[in-house]
Amino acid sequence: MDILKDLIKKNEAKIVLIVLDGVGDLPGKDGKTPLEYAKTPNLDSLAKESATGFHIPVDLGITPGSGPGHLGLFGYDPKEIVIGRGVLEALGVGLTLTDRDIAARGNFATVRYEGDTPIVVDRRAGRIPTEENQRLIEKLKKEIREIDGVEVILKSGLEHRFSVVFRFPDEVSQESAQINDTDPQVVNLPPLPPKGENEPAERVARVAQKFIELCAKVLRDEERANYVLLRGFSVKPKLVPFSERFGVRALCIAYYPMYRGLASLVGMTLLDNVGGTIESAFLALKEHFSDYDFFFVHIKKTDSYGEDGNFEGKVKVIEEFDRELTRVLELKPDVLCITGDHSTPCPMKGHSWHPVPVLIHSPYVLGGLSQRFTERECLKGELGIFPAVKLMPLLLAHAGKLKKFGA
Amino acid sequence: MDILKDLIKKNEAKIVLIVLDGVGDLPGKDGKTPLEYAKTPNLDSLAKESATGFHIPVDLGITPGSGPGHLGLFGYDPKEIVIGRGVLEALGVGLTLTDRDIAARGNFATVRYEGDTPIVVDRRAGRIPTEENQRLIEKLKKEIREIDGVEVILKSGLEHRFSVVFRFPDEVSQESAQINDTDPQVVNLPPLPPKGENEPAERVARVAQKFIELCAKVLRDEERANYVLLRGFSVKPKLVPFSERFGVRALCIAYYPMYRGLASLVGMTLLDNVGGTIESAFLALKEHFSDYDFFFVHIKKTDSYGEDGNFEGKVKVIEEFDRELTRVLELKPDVLCITGDHSTPCPMKGHSWHPVPVLIHSPYVLGGLSQRFTERECLKGELGIFPAVKLMPLLLAHAGKLKKFGA
Repeated sequence: MDILKDLIKKNEAKIVLIVLDGVGDLPGKDGKTPLEYAKTPNLDSLAKESATGFHIPVDLGITPGSGPGHLGLFGYDPKEIVIGRGVLEALGVGLTLTDRDIAARGNFATVRYEGDTPIVVDRRAGRIPTEENQRLIEKLKKEIREIDGVEVILKSGLEHRFSVVFRFPDEVSQESAQINDTDPQVVNLPPLPPKGENEPAERVARVAQKFIELCAKVLRDEERANYVLLRGFSVKPKLVPFSERFGVRALCIAYYPMYRGLASLVGMTLLDNVGGTIESAFLALKEHFSDYDFFFVHIKKTDSYGEDGNFEGKVKVIEEFDRELTRVLELKPDVLCITGDHSTPCPMKGHSWHPVPVLIHSPYVLGGLSQRFTERECLKGELGIFPAVKLMPLLLAHAGKLKKFGA
Repeated sequence: MDILKDLIKKNEAKIVLIVLDGVGDLPGKDGKTPLEYAKTPNLDSLAKESATGFHIPVDLGITPGSGPGHLGLFGYDPKEIVIGRGVLEALGVGLTLTDRDIAARGNFATVRYEGDTPIVVDRRAGRIPTEENQRLIEKLKKEIREIDGVEVILKSGLEHRFSVVFRFPDEVSQESAQINDTDPQVVNLPPLPPKGENEPAERVARVAQKFIELCAKVLRDEERANYVLLRGFSVKPKLVPFSERFGVRALCIAYYPMYRGLASLVGMTLLDNVGGTIESAFLALKEHFSDYDFFFVHIKKTDSYGEDGNFEGKVKVIEEFDRELTRVLELKPDVLCITGDHSTPCPMKGHSWHPVPVLIHSPYVLGGLSQRFTERECLKGELGIFPAVKLMPLLLAHAGKLKKFGA
């Protein structure tokens, strides 16, 4: 990647990267994968004149979460960059993180008291409904805004989960998040006090301890959620911003907070008010097409149907994508890449390690090797099977944005 | 590989890894390889519903010995782990090594004396027959059991070769084996005295020197084998045990000492009294199938026929394997992998650098890409061409033994 740094060349060429989340799959109906089963005339035509292949999101056999999956596509090595649990949770609920933030994931929990000592009875407070969670977070926000000069930012997640960010006056270091989880992992034990592994972390741990005590006080009369457990203390990874690293002005067109958060981590501009449909994403792409030269368009539903094991649903969203694709083709991007961040095979109802089909359309391809954009057809393509982290250099090259290396 | 460490998940799924030693080949009769020429109905069916591809044992263009070939399959990087010549020799003759051992390969040699100085006349003692070797080793064992508190373990190899292990009272370090070979490489020179490159190695070298002198005394009246030369001083590499590294209880079903030795190096349990036929290996697999969850089954003859350049012999053993394979299929292992440790092409009569066909059968594959388990058909498969060291993560993933990486 070091060699790339000196090769970046800016030009007007436009790159569109469409991520069909979890698109890769395994045989389902009639021995076909959703991509194989779906009727996709537009994708078929495109595949025939594109470079095709497979990317390996992280490594052989490794099933990536959304974080590592997207980092790879964005050209950052997912094996070297750790996104902490707390940071990911914050991104997932739509919080924006700064260099002054320590993020942790919170769980509402139920405790009983032995004297003054809390004893965990339910680590998830009976999985309270999200509405109750929201009521409690409002209550906490009113009472806890700042602790020893540290701003406290709270946001509800689903059921018993919430996100807490401690925003310090100054930049925080990676080490200052080295604090244990307070969840004792089993019931009938007291919560663990947060302890820092070093001096800066101790400072954060003291704030966290006060936060926990304040929460216990505010929640004292709640029937179920009368305590909070914190885990995954982390700071946002320090990354060379995408625009600097690759010399492009990048726009993120994504609906879900998690993917917006991941794009913001690498410094992409986030487009606000993106709708949840494929059509609205592509309309937004058209509207802003002249303002940027790299577009990350995230489409979620392929993954959701995969997670549900809903083969027909995944087929339908692929067919919908195929119909809407004409909107993208009309814009004639110099480089169009369609792929996924990982596979989410319907039979597995979850992410998997399987390599992911990739298609790169540009004038500079061999083409004629894959008849369709499917797992088995992409295997015949000119790109072979390559690490996801190498996709960005490939896209830049096809867009004429990389100079010759050496003379 | 560090990321793998935190992803290991134990479950009951069973993985069978069958290594057809040296199975990969080049075109022979009718332009077909032995795998292509052989009639293999069972393998053909299996290949159609399996993930297929090629592994590269060590690196492109690198011809592996049995040690590196197997280390890669076992998930240890063969470029980073050195198995010394003495250690390999000891494993090959069936000695089990501990952390207190320095192993060396011995050659019986012929010397004449100029005064007290031995001068090498034949570095291999005229390649004495193995039976003579065994007689001499018995003679040495009677006279030399211990030197300065160090136990001396001897075992015959073939012809002029033998293995010697110096077993110290305490654990020995890697550096303590940094001792030169005593073989002067040409005749009419005195043997080189063993010298250590550092203090702990000097201690070992002094023991080795006394051993050589004792041997010379015991062998004084032998006509040919009246001296010994030592080479390849080495200690067994320190490896994270297989069971710990991959979270499986592993059984080695191998007949030949070398492969048993390699499996024991990584800490697999060795099954005793394995017969030399494919049938007996598979019967043993059946018998112990419920007691372990990872099985390394080694089949040697594919390699032996390759070394002999015996195309028909290799075809026959592949066909025998295909017939016996039903015994394995009946056990319905969750993951079945068939591959080799390297190629041994008949036209080359030796190991080669060529990538090796791999087949992984599990419910979580695309399949339908290779019609047979042959070199040219495996090239069409979904696994592509990958480093052998990545096979274990792939097998674990297919067995559901790896957690998701990142959220």
